[in-house]
Amino acid sequence: MKTLYDMERSGNCYKVRLLLALLGEDYERVTVDLTREEPREASFLALNPRGEIPVLVEDDQAIWDSGAILVYLATQAVDRHWFPDAALARARVTQWLAVAANEVHHGLAAARAIRLFGRTGDLAQSQAVGRCALTLLDQQLARGPWLAGEAPSIADIACYPYVSIAEEGALSLAPYQNVARWCRNIESLPGYTPMMARQPSA
Amino acid sequence: MKTLYDMERSGNCYKVRLLLALLGEDYERVTVDLTREEPREASFLALNPRGEIPVLVEDDQAIWDSGAILVYLATQAVDRHWFPDAALARARVTQWLAVAANEVHHGLAAARAIRLFGRTGDLAQSQAVGRCALTLLDQQLARGPWLAGEAPSIADIACYPYVSIAEEGALSLAPYQNVARWCRNIESLPGYTPMMARQPSA
Repeated sequence: MKTLYDMERSGNCYKVRLLLALLGEDYERVTVDLTREEPREASFLALNPRGEIPVLVEDDQAIWDSGAILVYLATQAVDRHWFPDAALARARVTQWLAVAANEVHHGLAAARAIRLFGRTGDLAQSQAVGRCALTLLDQQLARGPWLAGEAPSIADIACYPYVSIAEEGALSLAPYQNVARWCRNIESLPGYTPMMARQPSA
Repeated sequence: MKTLYDMERSGNCYKVRLLLALLGEDYERVTVDLTREEPREASFLALNPRGEIPVLVEDDQAIWDSGAILVYLATQAVDRHWFPDAALARARVTQWLAVAANEVHHGLAAARAIRLFGRTGDLAQSQAVGRCALTLLDQQLARGPWLAGEAPSIADIACYPYVSIAEEGALSLAPYQNVARWCRNIESLPGYTPMMARQPSA
């Protein structure tokens, strides 16, 4: 059984939860709240020396970094399209994992964290990087329904979470119609799960 | 034949040159000087929408992002240890690719660029991130000769360049003895090539 060290409103954790849902895999969730800026406990640093979530544990092995966890799960998966075996297809997926970890993270995720969680940072600069991310994605998604190749891959899963909540960083998707269509494509995949559990209606 | 769009003093380009040298692969080099902050030409943006080097072209396909290029070359390679096939081993390599693109890039590479090329940025903050990178690497390298597993991988190749020139960002390797030993391990690999071509002695 896999165990995910997780926080619901973390987009990086949601990448892993979304892929696990699409793969139909069962797992245990351990909630860890790292929004407070306080020193990490030694037991958690033993799992991840960076002191961040998500961390996935299987067979006493702790895997950290959301991109690395996606590669791990996709390499185990029967369906090869999540992280293809051919060199060029795999390189294309890896390019967009890099955009997820760079422009999407330092733009869209940072702008959201500044606005929602009061994280220190320059909101205007993060939003500018976020617009670079959305422009890169929109140009690529003008060419086809997925970021890399003819099928969904972990490239899509890595970029989607912080794109889908870009408005929480005051960035509208309206100018990026290919991105908006791609979000709907992902939301139509069998097994798709939203980031936040629905609250029971009052 | 592969073509590498390259600049000698770019550590990101050197990652690719180093792996190509270790794999014994021939390739053409096209020098592109992107140190000046001016708009990229459309012909170059057609190769890489991010407007960065390195870019590797093979069979009319342009691959950008140094990590993606390393994955591409390692996936083509006969020796599987550069980017292993097993899920856990591959995840371990991917973790350190992420550290190369994050802590090493935003720490060691950024501090060097501020000092050497006058890039805008906070030198003290970049050096602090650089020390985080070196601490993470040193802890891992206390456990074994390579960053991931029992053999060299693209994790080592991705982290080595900016670590080996950390002193250009005024960061000493002296407190990080495991890192210093690992640098010597890499420099002893058959086919190893230094970053800068040796100048003829006067």
